[in-house]
Amino acid sequence: MSILVVGSVAFDDITSPSGNVKNILGGAATYFSLAASYFTQVRMVAVVGEDFGAEQEKVFHKRGIGTRGIERAQGKSFRWGGTYSHNLNEAKTDFTELNVFERFQPKIPQEYADTEFLFLANIQPTLQADVRRKMNAVRLTGCDTMNYWIQRTPRELAATLKLVSVLLINDTETKMLAGETNLPRAAQKVLAMGPQALVIKHGEYGATIFFREGAFGIGRHPFRAPTLPIDEVKDPTGAGDSFAGGFMGYIASQEDLNREVLKRALFYGGVMGSFAVESFGTERLQSLTREAIDERFQVFRELTHLE
Amino acid sequence: MSILVVGSVAFDDITSPSGNVKNILGGAATYFSLAASYFTQVRMVAVVGEDFGAEQEKVFHKRGIGTRGIERAQGKSFRWGGTYSHNLNEAKTDFTELNVFERFQPKIPQEYADTEFLFLANIQPTLQADVRRKMNAVRLTGCDTMNYWIQRTPRELAATLKLVSVLLINDTETKMLAGETNLPRAAQKVLAMGPQALVIKHGEYGATIFFREGAFGIGRHPFRAPTLPIDEVKDPTGAGDSFAGGFMGYIASQEDLNREVLKRALFYGGVMGSFAVESFGTERLQSLTREAIDERFQVFRELTHLE
Repeated sequence: MSILVVGSVAFDDITSPSGNVKNILGGAATYFSLAASYFTQVRMVAVVGEDFGAEQEKVFHKRGIGTRGIERAQGKSFRWGGTYSHNLNEAKTDFTELNVFERFQPKIPQEYADTEFLFLANIQPTLQADVRRKMNAVRLTGCDTMNYWIQRTPRELAATLKLVSVLLINDTETKMLAGETNLPRAAQKVLAMGPQALVIKHGEYGATIFFREGAFGIGRHPFRAPTLPIDEVKDPTGAGDSFAGGFMGYIASQEDLNREVLKRALFYGGVMGSFAVESFGTERLQSLTREAIDERFQVFRELTHLE
Repeated sequence: MSILVVGSVAFDDITSPSGNVKNILGGAATYFSLAASYFTQVRMVAVVGEDFGAEQEKVFHKRGIGTRGIERAQGKSFRWGGTYSHNLNEAKTDFTELNVFERFQPKIPQEYADTEFLFLANIQPTLQADVRRKMNAVRLTGCDTMNYWIQRTPRELAATLKLVSVLLINDTETKMLAGETNLPRAAQKVLAMGPQALVIKHGEYGATIFFREGAFGIGRHPFRAPTLPIDEVKDPTGAGDSFAGGFMGYIASQEDLNREVLKRALFYGGVMGSFAVESFGTERLQSLTREAIDERFQVFRELTHLE
């Protein structure tokens, strides 16, 4: 089955203890699409500027990703610059130039209207809700957001959360959204806002999925997937979006949605996130094989598996 | 088999968002012993003051813990006061009165000399090394330490690390000890200092065990055990020591030391740590049953178990 993602496509300048790169392809929709492309057919809805050319588009086409929903606008693409110090968990933003992204109005191509899975990457919550409302065939919607929207547009975000199946955010965002410092209690408060499931991404410690009572007909016991600690994290940019790509992509590739599928999806999320950070930008995500992905899935499984 | 623990027995004043208590029984050796007592015979070596009486001793005797190695000294016992704010991960120390603990010189009763398992709780590294050298029948030594000794007595600590089998510390301590911010690389540096295995405690995210090449004849793939997120953490004091008690206690209860035993031990560590934080002080640890422990073990196992 197919999945449609709406979000940013960008050019990034990144500095980390492992080096620095300029003007590389980035953005949430980019990382998500590449990661999900190893599992299912991906369709993108985004906006780019005149600086986005055949070279960039080829990255997506090589992975069989549908780019018909990438709108070309006058001006420059979204640009972001960030620096990671030795604590790789958080980037210092050097600059953000929204450019064409500032006036982004997602347009769904007619041939994408029947897509069954949807991922709303981190954009303005009202735009997320608009896209969700246009997609009548959708079976499951994943959604990301960030502290900026939680603090600046809480009402708009609340409306969006009523329309999504799974929200994927990190520990800090969960606590901020719930106004509660205890994580399991914060999770319950977030679930009460609308989503059937909440995936909390713990960075290098993996992720936990919490369910609303009766969600997907599978009860409410949480499930946790670890990640393998990586010897060298070159560039953490896009780890969360790649996680979402692995998680949603695997779900979209399965006939049924049950507890075991969601558990495996959480492991695949961790796998794709761990690949993403091994090189700058999307380099590693462009050159994977499903075999290498499944091999790491087994390593992650073994990491916590008791006989 | 038996395990001997050397460490602090204290009286604590604790304030957390859930309330406050004064003058309750605490200390690393206390938490460790109670947790380990559900798995194996425990023997304590510690020092207390005149304020430690029959009431306190009864707590240990009820769990069958050997207290012959608890020395009575003139003066007051070690006292500690701490406050946890909403971020329960770190306590603000309100006061530390070392009292009789300041001149602690561990004395091993003759009848404890043949103990096969040893845990060196967080005390001055030279004292830890002295105890280890006196115990000739020991098959496996666990050891804890803290930032204070890492920074103030690095040479003494280095000497101690050459004598221990498993070091149990947290993420921050690992990075500080190794002088390296990447966790897997820091783990390798710490293993090069002596221990065959390093257990890194991640608090609410569980723990990871890293092995030296060939350690215990089981190779070097790390293993990670999750913990269940707890709805209400009343008092995090002693969580790490209780983790160590579950981990070491389970190992001491097994005939063989192999990879599967170490994996289960890591889960049992998480289980005992999670019980410890559910009530103030050692209350929960005093009243458990092996049945309740194994029930939670199964819950933790299910938390990450893929079919």
